[in-house]
Amino acid sequence: MAKRFPAAYYVERILAHDRLGLSRAITLVESTLPSDQELAREIIQQLLPFSGNSVRIGITGVPGVGKSTFIEAFGTFVTREQQKKLAVLAIDPTSQRTGGSILGDKTRMETLAGNKQAYIRPSPAGKSLGGVARSTRESIILCEAAGFEVIFVETVGVGQSETAVHEMVDFFLLLMLAGAGDELQGIKKGIMEMADAVVITKADGQNLQKARAARAEYQSALHLFPRTASGWSPKVAISSALENTGITEVWQTIEAYLETVQNGSYFEQKRQHQNLHWLHESIRQTLLDRFFAKPEVKETLPELEKKVLQGEVSAFAAAEELLKFSN
Amino acid sequence: MAKRFPAAYYVERILAHDRLGLSRAITLVESTLPSDQELAREIIQQLLPFSGNSVRIGITGVPGVGKSTFIEAFGTFVTREQQKKLAVLAIDPTSQRTGGSILGDKTRMETLAGNKQAYIRPSPAGKSLGGVARSTRESIILCEAAGFEVIFVETVGVGQSETAVHEMVDFFLLLMLAGAGDELQGIKKGIMEMADAVVITKADGQNLQKARAARAEYQSALHLFPRTASGWSPKVAISSALENTGITEVWQTIEAYLETVQNGSYFEQKRQHQNLHWLHESIRQTLLDRFFAKPEVKETLPELEKKVLQGEVSAFAAAEELLKFSN
Ligand SMILES: Nc1nc2c(ncn2[C@@H]2O[C@H](COP(=O)(O)OP(=O)(O)OP(=O)(O)O)[C@@H](O)[C@H]2O)c(=O)[nH]1
Ligand SMILES: Nc1nc2c(ncn2[C@@H]2O[C@H](COP(=O)(O)OP(=O)(O)OP(=O)(O)O)[C@@H](O)[C@H]2O)c(=O)[nH]1
Ligand SMILES: [Mg+2]
Ligand SMILES: [Mg+2]
Repeated sequence: MAKRFPAAYYVERILAHDRLGLSRAITLVESTLPSDQELAREIIQQLLPFSGNSVRIGITGVPGVGKSTFIEAFGTFVTREQQKKLAVLAIDPTSQRTGGSILGDKTRMETLAGNKQAYIRPSPAGKSLGGVARSTRESIILCEAAGFEVIFVETVGVGQSETAVHEMVDFFLLLMLAGAGDELQGIKKGIMEMADAVVITKADGQNLQKARAARAEYQSALHLFPRTASGWSPKVAISSALENTGITEVWQTIEAYLETVQNGSYFEQKRQHQNLHWLHESIRQTLLDRFFAKPEVKETLPELEKKVLQGEVSAFAAAEELLKFSN
Repeated sequence: MAKRFPAAYYVERILAHDRLGLSRAITLVESTLPSDQELAREIIQQLLPFSGNSVRIGITGVPGVGKSTFIEAFGTFVTREQQKKLAVLAIDPTSQRTGGSILGDKTRMETLAGNKQAYIRPSPAGKSLGGVARSTRESIILCEAAGFEVIFVETVGVGQSETAVHEMVDFFLLLMLAGAGDELQGIKKGIMEMADAVVITKADGQNLQKARAARAEYQSALHLFPRTASGWSPKVAISSALENTGITEVWQTIEAYLETVQNGSYFEQKRQHQNLHWLHESIRQTLLDRFFAKPEVKETLPELEKKVLQGEVSAFAAAEELLKFSN
């Protein structure tokens, strides 16, 4: 186990914008040791007043859509052109890759990885979605207290994790491939309707024409979607991360969004709503985890599930049967 | 309190396709009295082997889109032209109208209400979504055992109830108005992507052109959506319930869907998956209800929520604080 310091050490280092202190605090947040968790709680509590001053951007898309390459290009733009300090976090609970998804593809983010204005933190390995969601939420707070002004939260758009990311960011960016065919099979239903912007990736070479056509198609499709209370209507952009095109437009779209939602109470309200969401989500998750960890439940569940599947018992009768073990 | 009979009475009456017996059993299913619930459980358990033989169709759309009028026309077609016995149930937990949403507008369903082949049951009043979802699920079982071959589950597409309906039907029909503008504000994000078919309503008179244009727009938009494992791609139809047009097409679409999904294991798998969903959903709901009913939780929650909203405490720290009361 790595060395531990008193809470004040982490708090001071983070407020002094020190990366080592930040990394060490994130390690605590990700730890499952009760003593680490308590220390983490103390640090978070003290840093909470210094958090909130960033733009939190969710970035999702199916594997291979070009997330890493886009983040490299877009992140470089944000730090170099916009002169903003950027933190990149990842939610990737299904990742088999050790060290998470981000540092795994160093070649695709090498410019950003060597950039003093950028801080890249891979997804913690071997954690449940609930666990990663929690540590990512808390890492956002730590990064903000450490002076990061833009935060990317990356996730692979194939499971429940996009919904979790959607609930922790201000702006939700969906990367899509042109030629919306079988490639899309992987993405979950409902995600498209969550997007504040769609970026058609790899808009270069042979692909450029297809990307332009896709932009038009998506733009008219998004018009049909229900609007949000934000008053914002989702935009579609095309970008080539390799040729560095469309990057400025994506940033301008985010700025336009912020202008729309900060011109009123929506931005703050959304964040407050997200806070409440995580309070309730965290309670829900803990209650369920505890219930399903009970030996009697573990023993009875498979048999009951089988009966439910075979139509021998109704779902509700089975639930009642199991709930006998709840106390 | 109404008279109660032994379980065998309800079971026999329902298997003899008697409506009074069915109605009485549904009343038990909807009752909150523990003795009624136990009786209901017994009836359901005995009828379970006789259930499952219907096509379950969810029908949703914003208020005023024309659900009642469409159900009147479509239901008349199903019973008269297709000669099928039809049950119409409703999930409408937010309804202020006494007697639920369906019988409220008798004028719009008068043909169907007088139709011997059709059975209309309003949404139970004054219940939570969880409660209505449960009683609707169990009513479906009762209706199937009573010989109904087609079941409509209607809901207003403005809350969580569409998701609940989506989890209990084979086919999910979304009614939409042409001129997708502000009218759509009410519908929840993600619902469009759940639809197996979209019907543009009120395609008559001045509206016909707009409806045709909307059909083309939606059809190309739906192509961009992620596909399901079913292999089905969602269809768009236009219909005028007043002029009785497009009704046959909607039925043919449902038949085409059934052909697609029954030609393999998808249909059965989806129902099994739904059963498991309700098992877990029911456990989740009960655990949460019990937790939030605890006096200490009730007392502490508002204060903690306030602190979370004001950013004084992190969502996770607040959750931990509350979870101290969980046992
Ligand atoms: N032509 C072209 N290829 C690109 C572009 N961006 C990414 N690619 C290529 O697409 C492939 C996948 O890119 P990644 O950035 O690794 O995609 P990803 O979404 O991060 O993939 P996962 O990490 O597996 O989820 C790589 O071979 C990239 O070189 C682009 O702008 N143009
Ligand atoms: N022109 C035209 N009007 C229709 C049609 N269907 C429904 N309407 C009218 O639209 C209005 C709303 O219809 P309803 O069927 O009550 O709509 P609903 O979706 O059930 O509404 P709620 O029960 O309030 O959620 C009524 O005035 C209907 O007469 C149609 O096919 N053509
Ligand atoms: Mg990647
Ligand atoms: Mg109605």
